[in-house]
Amino acid sequence: MKFIIINGPNLNMLEDREKDQYGNFSLWDIENILKKEFPKVSVTFYQSNLEGDLVTKIHEANKVYDGLIINPGGYAHTSVAIHDALALCKIPKVEVHLSNISRREDFRQKTLTAKQCNGYISGLKEISYLSGVYSLIKVIENY
Amino acid sequence: MKFIIINGPNLNMLEDREKDQYGNFSLWDIENILKKEFPKVSVTFYQSNLEGDLVTKIHEANKVYDGLIINPGGYAHTSVAIHDALALCKIPKVEVHLSNISRREDFRQKTLTAKQCNGYISGLKEISYLSGVYSLIKVIENY
Amino acid sequence: MKFIIINGPNLNMLEDREKDQYGNFSLWDIENILKKEFPKVSVTFYQSNLEGDLVTKIHEANKVYDGLIINPGGYAHTSVAIHDALALCKIPKVEVHLSNISRREDFRQKTLTAKQCNGYISGLKEISYLSGVYSLIKVIENY
Amino acid sequence: MKFIIINGPNLNMLEDREKDQYGNFSLWDIENILKKEFPKVSVTFYQSNLEGDLVTKIHEANKVYDGLIINPGGYAHTSVAIHDALALCKIPKVEVHLSNISRREDFRQKTLTAKQCNGYISGLKEISYLSGVYSLIKVIENY
Amino acid sequence: MKFIIINGPNLNMLEDREKDQYGNFSLWDIENILKKEFPKVSVTFYQSNLEGDLVTKIHEANKVYDGLIINPGGYAHTSVAIHDALALCKIPKVEVHLSNISRREDFRQKTLTAKQCNGYISGLKEISYLSGVYSLIKVIENY
Amino acid sequence: MKFIIINGPNLNMLEDREKDQYGNFSLWDIENILKKEFPKVSVTFYQSNLEGDLVTKIHEANKVYDGLIINPGGYAHTSVAIHDALALCKIPKVEVHLSNISRREDFRQKTLTAKQCNGYISGLKEISYLSGVYSLIKVIENY
Amino acid sequence: MKFIIINGPNLNMLEDREKDQYGNFSLWDIENILKKEFPKVSVTFYQSNLEGDLVTKIHEANKVYDGLIINPGGYAHTSVAIHDALALCKIPKVEVHLSNISRREDFRQKTLTAKQCNGYISGLKEISYLSGVYSLIKVIENY
Amino acid sequence: MKFIIINGPNLNMLEDREKDQYGNFSLWDIENILKKEFPKVSVTFYQSNLEGDLVTKIHEANKVYDGLIINPGGYAHTSVAIHDALALCKIPKVEVHLSNISRREDFRQKTLTAKQCNGYISGLKEISYLSGVYSLIKVIENY
Amino acid sequence: MKFIIINGPNLNMLEDREKDQYGNFSLWDIENILKKEFPKVSVTFYQSNLEGDLVTKIHEANKVYDGLIINPGGYAHTSVAIHDALALCKIPKVEVHLSNISRREDFRQKTLTAKQCNGYISGLKEISYLSGVYSLIKVIENY
Amino acid sequence: MKFIIINGPNLNMLEDREKDQYGNFSLWDIENILKKEFPKVSVTFYQSNLEGDLVTKIHEANKVYDGLIINPGGYAHTSVAIHDALALCKIPKVEVHLSNISRREDFRQKTLTAKQCNGYISGLKEISYLSGVYSLIKVIENY
Amino acid sequence: MKFIIINGPNLNMLEDREKDQYGNFSLWDIENILKKEFPKVSVTFYQSNLEGDLVTKIHEANKVYDGLIINPGGYAHTSVAIHDALALCKIPKVEVHLSNISRREDFRQKTLTAKQCNGYISGLKEISYLSGVYSLIKVIENY
Amino acid sequence: MKFIIINGPNLNMLEDREKDQYGNFSLWDIENILKKEFPKVSVTFYQSNLEGDLVTKIHEANKVYDGLIINPGGYAHTSVAIHDALALCKIPKVEVHLSNISRREDFRQKTLTAKQCNGYISGLKEISYLSGVYSLIKVIENY
Repeated sequence: MKFIIINGPNLNMLEDREKDQYGNFSLWDIENILKKEFPKVSVTFYQSNLEGDLVTKIHEANKVYDGLIINPGGYAHTSVAIHDALALCKIPKVEVHLSNISRREDFRQKTLTAKQCNGYISGLKEISYLSGVYSLIKVIENY
Repeated sequence: MKFIIINGPNLNMLEDREKDQYGNFSLWDIENILKKEFPKVSVTFYQSNLEGDLVTKIHEANKVYDGLIINPGGYAHTSVAIHDALALCKIPKVEVHLSNISRREDFRQKTLTAKQCNGYISGLKEISYLSGVYSLIKVIENY
Repeated sequence: MKFIIINGPNLNMLEDREKDQYGNFSLWDIENILKKEFPKVSVTFYQSNLEGDLVTKIHEANKVYDGLIINPGGYAHTSVAIHDALALCKIPKVEVHLSNISRREDFRQKTLTAKQCNGYISGLKEISYLSGVYSLIKVIENY
Repeated sequence: MKFIIINGPNLNMLEDREKDQYGNFSLWDIENILKKEFPKVSVTFYQSNLEGDLVTKIHEANKVYDGLIINPGGYAHTSVAIHDALALCKIPKVEVHLSNISRREDFRQKTLTAKQCNGYISGLKEISYLSGVYSLIKVIENY
Repeated sequence: MKFIIINGPNLNMLEDREKDQYGNFSLWDIENILKKEFPKVSVTFYQSNLEGDLVTKIHEANKVYDGLIINPGGYAHTSVAIHDALALCKIPKVEVHLSNISRREDFRQKTLTAKQCNGYISGLKEISYLSGVYSLIKVIENY
Repeated sequence: MKFIIINGPNLNMLEDREKDQYGNFSLWDIENILKKEFPKVSVTFYQSNLEGDLVTKIHEANKVYDGLIINPGGYAHTSVAIHDALALCKIPKVEVHLSNISRREDFRQKTLTAKQCNGYISGLKEISYLSGVYSLIKVIENY
Repeated sequence: MKFIIINGPNLNMLEDREKDQYGNFSLWDIENILKKEFPKVSVTFYQSNLEGDLVTKIHEANKVYDGLIINPGGYAHTSVAIHDALALCKIPKVEVHLSNISRREDFRQKTLTAKQCNGYISGLKEISYLSGVYSLIKVIENY
Repeated sequence: MKFIIINGPNLNMLEDREKDQYGNFSLWDIENILKKEFPKVSVTFYQSNLEGDLVTKIHEANKVYDGLIINPGGYAHTSVAIHDALALCKIPKVEVHLSNISRREDFRQKTLTAKQCNGYISGLKEISYLSGVYSLIKVIENY
Repeated sequence: MKFIIINGPNLNMLEDREKDQYGNFSLWDIENILKKEFPKVSVTFYQSNLEGDLVTKIHEANKVYDGLIINPGGYAHTSVAIHDALALCKIPKVEVHLSNISRREDFRQKTLTAKQCNGYISGLKEISYLSGVYSLIKVIENY
Repeated sequence: MKFIIINGPNLNMLEDREKDQYGNFSLWDIENILKKEFPKVSVTFYQSNLEGDLVTKIHEANKVYDGLIINPGGYAHTSVAIHDALALCKIPKVEVHLSNISRREDFRQKTLTAKQCNGYISGLKEISYLSGVYSLIKVIENY
Repeated sequence: MKFIIINGPNLNMLEDREKDQYGNFSLWDIENILKKEFPKVSVTFYQSNLEGDLVTKIHEANKVYDGLIINPGGYAHTSVAIHDALALCKIPKVEVHLSNISRREDFRQKTLTAKQCNGYISGLKEISYLSGVYSLIKVIENY
Repeated sequence: MKFIIINGPNLNMLEDREKDQYGNFSLWDIENILKKEFPKVSVTFYQSNLEGDLVTKIHEANKVYDGLIINPGGYAHTSVAIHDALALCKIPKVEVHLSNISRREDFRQKTLTAKQCNGYISGLKEISYLSGVYSLIKVIENY
């Protein structure tokens, strides 16, 4: 099983963000944790601060991977472009958020992009990623 | 590890609900799936259609279980009482929804009760429960 | 033909409510009026102040009655749980309100629960119930 | 007993509208159904696409009929003029809608004109008219 | 003078709630403080987590007590059912809140149920109850 | 114990306002009632129609009184200036309203200034003042 | 000086409307009062219940009259068509309302059509018309 | 007949304001125009920039004048205090605005204070004052 | 090919409207421009200021023309009746606006009626009509 | 005549999007259709998923092309940056949308960027592009 | 160069306000800092808690000073009167706020009064004043 | 002292924008003015039309500069990504806007990104930049 894990803006600096919201790990730590937890799954990490690059990467994922995990970061709340790219992409998709968006600022409480995923997971810090991969495996095995 | 899995209104009739939103299983099927997937975890299922009974059960859970999973059903969107009960309960908590609330009716798009959980998982049908238990185990092991 | 007539909170005290809004009769008077007007229909009255009990009763009605009339009282405006229970219940359903909700307080002007009924009737006091039974008979005869 | 049944815009084309919302009958079919169901009531049907003509007809009804049924069609949601005409008209009045306005587009969910009727009935297709006449008879007999 | 003091959801767990909002006492401590402060008044405490039970208790209070104090907890902000029950109950009524709802979360800043009480008191922790009883005595003596 | 009781616009004309909202007494009557009820407390009444004078008086109160009661009248709903003055003033503070603001016009239903008081009391007419003084004594004795 | 006085829906029935809002006179009484008060001004009264007829009459007025008074009735609050017709009409224009729209229902508190008049007068019952003619004379004499 | 004409903030500088909105005259010019137009009426002009002083002046007017005209300036849109003072004042009252508030900034389109006047006049520049006095005379003569 | 071009209120006066919004031509000029540009298409122009007449004309168009162009003028923003008439009419339909509604007043920025057309064109002045006919030909040729 | 046709996010994948909304063609098909339909016009297609690249391309277009057509895709609804770039660009501009945005999701119903174009065309699928080029030619020939 | 620096409510008590929002200095400290930093500029400080006095002072400033700095305090968010006074005052004007209003309570996030200043500066504590004077000098020198 | 001055979309074209909003200078003119005014400060100008590039540049600034000035252009009003990047960056930060955003279109009146800066300056055209640098120096010297 090959998964792509697409990460949006500021996640390349994860280790410098508020620890009570985002946890204690860098994005690369999370990559390693995932690889240890799911040794049989091939995970490819991608990160970009550019909304349009995330759109393009989602387009490309459709042809290459079995499943897609996306943490759109701040674009989750406003990006019609990513929403539409996800609608185009027919593989199983799960959105993840490190922080619990239901209890953050008003502008972060709704996710537009999750509308076009199978489901989404929010608030479990690095475990959101673990749970995302776990769920994706289950979704695919069910297919 | 002992978990309680609290289920709100209409989940006792799950097998009769819209399959494209809620999946193909009854609540009791889900209980069995969980037990097979996590044989070492003791899971206790509770279901009530009464908001106040869910409040009381959350109060009681605090003293007896290692973790709590709640699917508040339709009360997720309006219940200050369940929100406040969850705030009182200090064990790890994960909210789960079978359907993807971000793409349903307006009155279902926000969850009030998830503000008082560690995190929440939405849209993966019965896999939301699997992923909830998986996550709770990880949260607790990290403690 | 067997109908269940489910009544929500405060309708057990109907005779004590504002007469210009709710009319001059108790719920039991209405039961008698219905029985006299529709002698061939068996009507069963149920009343509860508990949202969850109304949910449960709707679940049970599905298997036993030919049609359902509901006056959800104050729960009409906010209860996702009753809305979802009605969605589960496949027999013909009509919602009735004694008062004309379109000219009352803002918080009473929309009914959430009526979305899941065939139709609804508001403002005709005890005649709303008569008209509800009359309509349900017509709906069923058409089937 | 003499009733006037006033019908707003597009109801002259009823047989061409969406059948799942409006049912299978033309306005003239409904007229015939009513006459058969209520042979002792004289019903006069009036239809106009013009808001102002509906206002004028309501003015005239006051002097000639025992009761008024109105289906204001699309004007129900915005017409202060019809609202005010109904306020002027002192005979018993019932508003009817073929479709269940509580589950249609946002702009159709509130009725302004029903505020000035005794009550309203929505969603029962042609049975809304039957139930409207039935209710009006009961209202008048009570007087 | 006989007063009933009706308490809503989570107040049975008061001693476990946030102390800066709700103060240092359990509901039973408050009962004792009231009895000491007002030895001539008979106070009956009732607590339930169930909205419908609070409705029923308000119905019953009308016939038995000289005054009613209610802390509807989280139901204050949404419950049309309790609002309507209070409207039915003709004895003097005062609503009390331990925390100052004007400076809490948006969903707690308005009280729907207080519309049907003589007045309401908010933010003085256990003193809200003392002040509620004190006020009720004054209201009744004025009668 | 020395309390200042600050009264906002139109309270100098209290005896001419709507009696069903504001009761039967003038502000000076209320002063006398308070003095009789609480003979050991020194109460100083201040009234001004000027928002800025109320701000200044709150500043001065900080240094001279043990507690402050404010009825900001119409300024309660909009005055950031009084809100900020109360934030500056560190003695115990209770806001009082003669009428029950939760059931008046929309523009009167929220109080901005009460956010910076310990608590507030609304709707008990002159008893709101009595209850305000009673509460303030209790708050101070607890300190 | 020749003025046209255009009257919208329901004003042909003025004598039957709520007297506390609309005063004691019929539209024809008002015409007579105006003629007696302003004997040197030629006033032409026009009334229609049809929005489109009011639009057409405004078009025609441009070429024939020195000034225009309009009481758009219920169309004042929603009619873009009348708003645009008034924008086309270059003679002095005053809008009048018999009732004080600032204290009526929400849907009547804003006037869209007055944006395209020199000014508007509201709440003085038949005196609104007198004051409208008086003002128009003054506006024209200033020109 | 003795009228008081109360003017709010910035009207002492009227001659310096935008001429297309407020016309070409100072407040004192308007006073002279009124005196020439209505030689038999005694008009007293009062102006203050202080909200509270306007409140006080309205209180005093009740006892001394036959009618009151108020241009509350910028306070019209927000002042609950002036609204309440006008409610206290039982003589005939007309609110006037020089500019047409229905076509200005959003924050100026509603007037709160006019709710407590007999009526209001907006947009006719200095003629709003003339028309205000003219109307007040008519209102009083009717009494 | 036979097209009907239905024009709403104030378009009979087009030559008198604001030229920067609506261009330099009368409706009859536009008719001539269309005929010259599309000599093979038979275009029938219809204009009415009456909402209900536009509804009726749309009904009639269904049976007689190959395509329909509508400029509903001010009714575009509020008319449920025209919206519903267009839904009934099964020939290809294009809505046109002379001015760019996306940059005009708030009340003009949304079009309700265009929801029931194939598409709409806004802001190109008389070219909106040319482009409408051009598009309709292309739509039909594709069929 | 030289036109640039700027296309926003996801339009490079047009052939994979929902056919009932976007039609049956790829962006490159549309390019060919345009070239065949308008052989005398030189059209240059540009597509990017990056908001900032669209901004830059609009800047460059100003100096090189006679007209600009833009389909901003999902950026139409939120991008102040593209809005401002279009304001800077002084050649004729037309915005096009393949789908009818007036009947899609709420977040797609308003276009911010069209405010800075001459006009816009929505809902005609590939014909929106044809109609855009057709319109632009007409606009330019008029100049 | 002569500047007036007008300060609104509660700024006379600046040293007692929240230091993390407002900094460590009293208003008089700020006056001294300014004088030391800009020895060639004559700065006059004015402070009042009265909205109307601030209006009057702005009127007077127009004739006497070269530039005006205003910190309207809590009046910035609601005062139409100060907004209109600033519109009257034709010298260069800069509004300053000690705290960063974009991250404070909702009711403080918009400034109404800054609309009528050249610009505004927020969040730099006492440096907002320094920067205000610095900017005003630059604005004037440019003139 | 080394400052980075980050400029968002369309600022590379500043000399072509509306002069009454943005002033008379290009971005490079502003760079020169700053260097002349603050010869001891090293200022580095960066401009990009790409939201994600601005995010990346803010990340990099943290390690290299003593202070940061940002003019996010149109991204100020919607970009959660830039908001979060600024939160990550721990050096002193000031946001500047050339135009006075408090008096521009609704969509420009709030700045999201300024929440994560020390403060912001708006409306002083090129002087906003001067004042930004001046303020930053003062902020740093205070440290």
